[in-house]
Order: sequence, then C-alpha cells, then structure tokens
Amino acid sequence: MRDVAIIGIKSTKFGELWDYSFRDIFVEAGVGAIKDAGISGDEIDGLYVGNMSGGQFVDQEHIGALIADYSGLARNLHIPSTRVEAACASGGLALRQGVMAVASGYQDFVVAAGVEKMTDVNSAAASSALAAASDREWEGIMGATFPGLYAMIARKHIHKYGTTSEQLADVAVKNHLNGSMNPISQYKKKITRESVLNSIMVADPLHIFDCSPITDGAAALVLAPAEVAHEYTDNPIYIKASAQASDTIALHDRRDITTLDATVAAGKRAYDMANLRPEDIDVAEVHDCFTIAEICAIEDLGFVKKGEGGKYTEDGYTAVNGQIPVNTSGGLKSCGHPVGATGVKQAVEIVHQLRGEAGKRQVENAEIGMTHNVGGSGATAVVHILSNKR
Amino acid sequence: MRDVAIIGIKSTKFGELWDYSFRDIFVEAGVGAIKDAGISGDEIDGLYVGNMSGGQFVDQEHIGALIADYSGLARNLHIPSTRVEAACASGGLALRQGVMAVASGYQDFVVAAGVEKMTDVNSAAASSALAAASDREWEGIMGATFPGLYAMIARKHIHKYGTTSEQLADVAVKNHLNGSMNPISQYKKKITRESVLNSIMVADPLHIFDCSPITDGAAALVLAPAEVAHEYTDNPIYIKASAQASDTIALHDRRDITTLDATVAAGKRAYDMANLRPEDIDVAEVHDCFTIAEICAIEDLGFVKKGEGGKYTEDGYTAVNGQIPVNTSGGLKSCGHPVGATGVKQAVEIVHQLRGEAGKRQVENAEIGMTHNVGGSGATAVVHILSNKR
Repeated sequence: MRDVAIIGIKSTKFGELWDYSFRDIFVEAGVGAIKDAGISGDEIDGLYVGNMSGGQFVDQEHIGALIADYSGLARNLHIPSTRVEAACASGGLALRQGVMAVASGYQDFVVAAGVEKMTDVNSAAASSALAAASDREWEGIMGATFPGLYAMIARKHIHKYGTTSEQLADVAVKNHLNGSMNPISQYKKKITRESVLNSIMVADPLHIFDCSPITDGAAALVLAPAEVAHEYTDNPIYIKASAQASDTIALHDRRDITTLDATVAAGKRAYDMANLRPEDIDVAEVHDCFTIAEICAIEDLGFVKKGEGGKYTEDGYTAVNGQIPVNTSGGLKSCGHPVGATGVKQAVEIVHQLRGEAGKRQVENAEIGMTHNVGGSGATAVVHILSNKR
Repeated sequence: MRDVAIIGIKSTKFGELWDYSFRDIFVEAGVGAIKDAGISGDEIDGLYVGNMSGGQFVDQEHIGALIADYSGLARNLHIPSTRVEAACASGGLALRQGVMAVASGYQDFVVAAGVEKMTDVNSAAASSALAAASDREWEGIMGATFPGLYAMIARKHIHKYGTTSEQLADVAVKNHLNGSMNPISQYKKKITRESVLNSIMVADPLHIFDCSPITDGAAALVLAPAEVAHEYTDNPIYIKASAQASDTIALHDRRDITTLDATVAAGKRAYDMANLRPEDIDVAEVHDCFTIAEICAIEDLGFVKKGEGGKYTEDGYTAVNGQIPVNTSGGLKSCGHPVGATGVKQAVEIVHQLRGEAGKRQVENAEIGMTHNVGGSGATAVVHILSNKR
C-alpha cells in the first residue's frame, strides 16, 4: 500500500452563488487545485467527485463525466472520472476513493473533489432532496426532516446528559466567529448566544441558528504518491488514515441515538491505522450540520467524554485557542454546507492549518489534523487523519 | 498492487419485478453472492454499489448505507458502503472501485454490486431520469432522448459505412436468442429480422426492438485478494485488467460520433494492462443499450475493423458459436438493462462462462472474457478483462 499526500487544494467561495452554474463552480475548484499543485491537467490520472444529488438539484446525473468534460480532461485525455455518493458524506468518500486509487498503484495523480449547487431549486424542493438521505420508507414518508431527526438526538442528549440550549448555541457562536475569519465562508457575521436562542425555532430544541444553511460550493484536492510529493510542493500534507463506517439508515434502529456508532467505528479505525490517539489531534473539522451534531462528534471521536460535549464547548475547549480547536473553517454552520463538497472542504481547511496558512484562525503548531464527515443522521461516517510530517 | 479475484456471484432475475422493492432485490443479489463465495457477512470489509438514479427512481439517495443496513452489515459490523454513479456505467465502476480497494490493501473481501428499480415510476418519468445522463443543458433541454442520440449515431454509421437496418436487427435477433437461454433474462422470446423491422419506430432508424428495455434488477460479486481466492472457491476468476475512460458528455462535441473514443481508450488501457490483444478474448459482454451500440462496441474494442461491425454481425461472427461470442447473456437488449446493475451483471455472465457453467449458451473453452459498460452516449466507458487462469 503506497502512502498518499495532498499536493494541491482549492475551495470556491461558499454561499448563494447565483452567478455561477454547477459546472462553473466545479471547474473553479478543480482547476484551482491543479494550479495549486503546480502540475498540468495531462498529468492527472483520475477524478473522484463527491456529489449528493445532482439529479434532484440540477437535473443532471453522470456528474463525473460532465465534470471531466468541462474541466478539459475528457475530450483528448479521456481521464477516468467517477462520482461518489453518500449523502452529506459524499465529499469525504470522494477523498477516500482517491486515496485508495493512489494507494493501489492504479493511479498516481488524482483530483478528489466535491460539488453541490443547491440554490437553483426552492427550499421545499431542497428539503425534499435532502430527505432522500434518510430512510424514505420509514422516516421521510412519516414527515421526518433532517432538522426533526437531529432535534430528536438533541432532546435525548439534553435528557440524558443535561446538555443545555445555551451550550448548543455556543457551538454556533464559536463557528460563526471562526467563519468570520475565513475568506470563503457563507456567513461572515459573528453571533451571540442570545441571537441563537432568540432565533426562530425550526424543530425544538433547534433554532434556525442551530442549523447549517443551504449552500452552493465546490472544493478540490490533488493527491499524489507520498514519495514524489516533494517534487511538486514544499509542504505536502500526508494522509495518515482513511476510515469509513456504516450504521442503520433510520435513527429508530440505533442502539442509542445520542451516539453515532458509525463515527465511533470510523474514528477507531482511523486512530488504529495512524497509530494515534484523540489527544494527538491538533485541529479537527467535524460534521456540524446542526449544533448538536458537533457535540456528539467531539464525544464520539474521543476528544471529550460522552455527555460532556456541551460543557466542554461552553468552556472554550474547542475554540481556535482551546485544547482541541474544532471547525476553524466555521464548519458547516457558518462556512456553509454544499452537501457533496463539505467533506473535501474540511480537508482543504486542515491542509491550510497544517501548512500554517490559516491566517487569523491559525492554530499554533498544528501538525496533525482530522476531518470527520457524516451522511444523513449518521448512517455513513468517514474520518481522515492528516499530518505535515510523513 | 495486489491481484484480485472474483470468488462469488449472483444476479437476481431481471424484469418488471413489481413484487420486489428496491431493497429486496439488492439483498437477494448481495446475500446470494456472499453465499456463493462461501464466506460470512462479518468477513466482508466493504461494499461498492453502482446505482444511477435512486433519487429519481425511488426517491432515495444514500444508497450505500441503506443497502449495508438492509443486508445486515451496518448495525453491528459498521461495514463501509459506497455508492458509485456514472449513469449506465455505474455497475462497471462499482466493480472497478472494489478492485482498487482490494488491490490497495485497504480492504480484503469486498462486495461489488449494482442495483436499479426502474418500474416504480411511469415511462415518461423514467425517460426523464435517464436523460439526466446526457448533457441536460445542451441535449436534454433541446428534446434529445437517448433513443434520439443513438439514432443519430446509427444514421451516421449507415451513411458512412453502409450499415443496414437488417444488420442492426441481427444484433437484436442474436441477443434475444441468447437471452432465451438465460434463466435471469427479462425476455425469453426469440425474434426474427422481420419482427424487428416491422416493430414500431422509436427514433428512425431505431425500432423498438433495437432498444433495450426498462428493467428492475440487481447483481453482485464478491472480490478477494487473488492469493487467498482458492481457499474459498475451486474456480476463482481473476481480474486481469480494469480500465476506464471519459469523453465529452454531449454527442455534438465528439470528433466522430460513430466511434466511442472512451471505449477505444478504455479498451486500449485494458489490453495494455492485461498484455493481451482483441484476438485473445474468448467471450465478451458489451454495452448494447441499442443495437447500433453493439456494432460500435465490437469495432471500438478491436474485434472487427471500423465500419464492419454490421457485416460481421450478419455473418454470425458474434454468435455463441462464432469467432468472438458477444452478449451471451442476452445483453442489455434481451437480458434487460437495470442501469446501475448492468455492469455487474456483465461480469456475472463472464464468470459463468469462464467457470463453464453457462448451460446452453456456454462458449467452448472460454478462458478469457471481457466486460464493456458505457455511461450515457459514451462519456464514460469501463472495460474489465477476466480470466480463469491467474
């Protein structure tokens, strides 16, 4: 198995990009990452594209080929291009497929990317498309939306562990502060506990400021065999672990809805593969589609004990200058959540951190980072550990 | 790079499976393949599922996790499961991702599968979903459907090479004869040249009997490292090559619409990888979504010279007892075409042939077989070469 490194990155601005088409945003990210890597398109051996729902959002499937074509990689170069889907974990899985392709020796230089254009449909259609990530026959049809499903997780967490709405709000406050320092983020506005608690209720106890938004955006990485990475960049970032796990698609089938067992399993596999422990991680991007999701994630990944995620968040443990800075990009909450792109953008942020180029949100001496990307209410979880040392 | 073998196979019956749900058909194929391999579910390290359009056909995305869950592999085992999409080439790419996963050493035992449930929507909705595999903004919106696109290819082929409607019909006649001998095929009825030529015209020169049908079905393979394959089966089938290529998504951007350059490129890469030539292939399953597609495929894969596919078909060159038997399963035309499953079913058929268990449609002394799976009008092509010798 060959070691794999990231040698180029690019994320578009995240937001309501009404002047960009689906094709435009992908090309900006893909070509940007290739440029950042300092290679040329004809050196690329393969593309992996995370996209959740091109069929429902922009009426287009066959996204891999479309994107190879519009990136100028299809007509003469005939570069293989594959779409990967696991709902909101599509981006993380595109990265994982790219890693395996390079590790296997089948391909040397690979673009792993994610893209979603969500604002070309109205919000009811967007909610309906997103609900296709849940169990349609047992959740969606009964009226369960994702805010509803995560609200159930939050209620149980509050009931079981005494987590408070204020602590949930603190996740949003922290992530908006981080997002205000990120040039690509959808929301640049700092918010307060009060503004979260006074915002409109979506699914009790989740206010609208507990929820990540509908977003357009794309992000891309260039992967290479670790042994040649230094020929392309002075600061390659190495993949120390790539791990994935599944769980039941419906929430009601889980043993305990306050623990995402897929996150626990993927985290454990990643730590084992990298031979690291939670306390070795210097910075993490976790899947905060709702504030409660970040609290569960920092518990399930072992950064804090089960049930104590709210308290630790309140105490600033996960702030940029805390013990384990979480979602320095602003997370899904403030940076935005173009579902297929999110997992790749997480890796872009960690690369920025490990290269030491994250500006005001830079974590001091960050050497080892983690990304954690979730599909649906936790039926898919994918965890990567990255390092700036080989 | 580790060598990879197929140690288990299963295909459901193909057809209008109104008494089976999407979930049912997948489980039948997946569990069947695991059983055929003689292993237990907890030995499986990963699932790759080809599915084109669960979102539009059954209102369900996040297919990978759903399928892991309903196969009993998610709740306690948390086995990773990934959906792969490239329109009608989704199945072929699921196999390819599975091959890379095993080759890389990331996973040992992998299920590579494909599934599509197409008959739960009406035919207009199905046509619309399928059109999402074309370039929506330049083809679909202008009214081009897939029969229309392939009719343009056929017209040009007729114009340029003198191919006849009778020769197109001969593809359908041969594939229906083969399908009549295949227990899983959708159509068991033999047809004649006259019945094709007298059937209703869909898009001139393609009659309805020149077109593959709308189909429900699933197929699955179990992959293993070649070095342990013999511990599980007496007749492992080895992957000698896995190759993929892209082309422009829109037909009008191609240099020559009668040649699928993605097929040529994927074929060449596969031959190079296996160190074989077209004349070494004993049996092939090629992508005959329309009769003209099989004629282009046997030319573009190098079995016959460009422009002579019609004539060779007429002469029986591709019949079960011909020089290079093509689509012994009945192909997409008669076996049926559940878009995400087709690429995997092609491999199931080749395994049957190389194991010598294809019954009346057995090709004598078949040792090396090929599968060729196409997405859209040729923007994606994926070719595998299999052998019963390591």
